[in-house]
Formats: sequence, C-alpha cells, structure tokens
Amino acid sequence: MSIFTKIINGELPSYRIAENDEFYAFLDINPNSKGHTLVVPKKEENKLFDLDKETYAKLMEYSRKIAIAIEKAVPCKRVGMSVIGLEVPHVHVHLIPLNEMKDATFNHKVNMTKEAFEEVAAKIRKELNQ
Amino acid sequence: MSIFTKIINGELPSYRIAENDEFYAFLDINPNSKGHTLVVPKKEENKLFDLDKETYAKLMEYSRKIAIAIEKAVPCKRVGMSVIGLEVPHVHVHLIPLNEMKDATFNHKVNMTKEAFEEVAAKIRKELNQ
Repeated sequence: MSIFTKIINGELPSYRIAENDEFYAFLDINPNSKGHTLVVPKKEENKLFDLDKETYAKLMEYSRKIAIAIEKAVPCKRVGMSVIGLEVPHVHVHLIPLNEMKDATFNHKVNMTKEAFEEVAAKIRKELNQ
Repeated sequence: MSIFTKIINGELPSYRIAENDEFYAFLDINPNSKGHTLVVPKKEENKLFDLDKETYAKLMEYSRKIAIAIEKAVPCKRVGMSVIGLEVPHVHVHLIPLNEMKDATFNHKVNMTKEAFEEVAAKIRKELNQ
C-alpha cells in the first residue's frame, strides 16, 4: 500500500484540497513553493501512461480544475504541472505555483508551518468552491 | 511569433516526431535526456491552464500517444511529463525519458549529435506508426 493510499484512507494526515470518487488532491508536505499540490488517483497505479485512456483523461481534467483554483488563490506567474514518479510508485500530478525556474526543478524546497499549510489549503478550497 | 511557431511553420528546423491539425511534436534541442520531446499546440497560447477545456483535453491525449511511443522506443524507467513555460510563452508539454531524478530537474542536459537526434526521432516515429 503506497504512502498516498494511506493518506487517501486517512491513516496518515494531509492538508486536503478536494476529492471525488476517483481522485484525491492535497498539499505536498515537502513543497517546491507555497501551494504545491498533488492530485492522485484513488486506485493505485504506478505509471501515468499505464492508466487507461479514460482514467488518464479524467485525471488531467480534474488536475486542470484544481490548477485553475490554485492560480486564483496563490500569487504566481503560472501553475506548472509535472508527473515524475521515480520516488513513490503511485501516480501523482504535481501542480506547482511558479515564479522562477527553481520552483520547477525539485531541487529547492520551502519550509512552511502547519498554519501556513492550513491557510493556503483554505484559500485554494475557497476558489474551488466558487 | 514564438520560436515554436517558427518551427511549426518550417522557418526553423526541427526533428519532427508527429503532427496533426492542432499539435506538433518534435525533439527538444536542449534535452534533459535522449528522446526528450515537446508537444505544442499550433495555435499560440501562453499558459496551459488558459487553453479552453477541449483543447487542453486534446493536447493531453495527443501527448499520451506520443509518450507511449517514447516509452517503447527509448530505454527508460518511465516517461515523465512537465509543463513549465517560464521561458517560451507558447504552451509546450515536455515528455522526458526518466532514469534518475536528475533527468526531471532541467538542471542537467545531455549533448547529442545530429545523427543521434535523427536516430531517436526515427525510433519514436516507428513506434507511433505501429
């Protein structure tokens, strides 16, 4: 069982952004930038391009909705999207508020307090629900 | 007119992978790894999440087809996908054969000869056409 499945099941805590029957979105706990969000299919699959065509399309559309809310909620030049997956073998779409190239490289991380995570999650949720 | 539009129009050369009415796929000339491909909408749009819902969905589906061909043609653990766009203001999906995390960070580039570009482009095109 992946660490993301434990998060989805509530066995590990997360700063939840949104979920539906198929996908779960939450803040990355080791963010490239403030507002860095992960979107994960609830059904465990290792590789993005092993998802069936329909699930992939739904994941991309769900990620788009979340990204548009992040762009409204978090000051940034744009939201970037990355799927890598070399570390956790459970598909996850990174949605990352970008201001500089270093925000996209996964080499520079930001420290955030619990309060800062909760605040940005609430802002994104508010934009999603409008 | 963006550098990608010049490539699409044939004013600048490229190692072409595939195209249809709406999208053009070609090798990144400054690749993170061998086989690193860009997929670009022919209609210039700056930001991924400013594309209309239908064009975004088609771009993601077209990128999926190309990525599956790259995974067959190029030895790698998986193909990663990234959309950043801070440098060229014309939407482009990076499809990157990944073996190590550094292949995904845009900090490490590989040098390739013209022959090596042509060889990997031909291999990807062959998988696409099967």
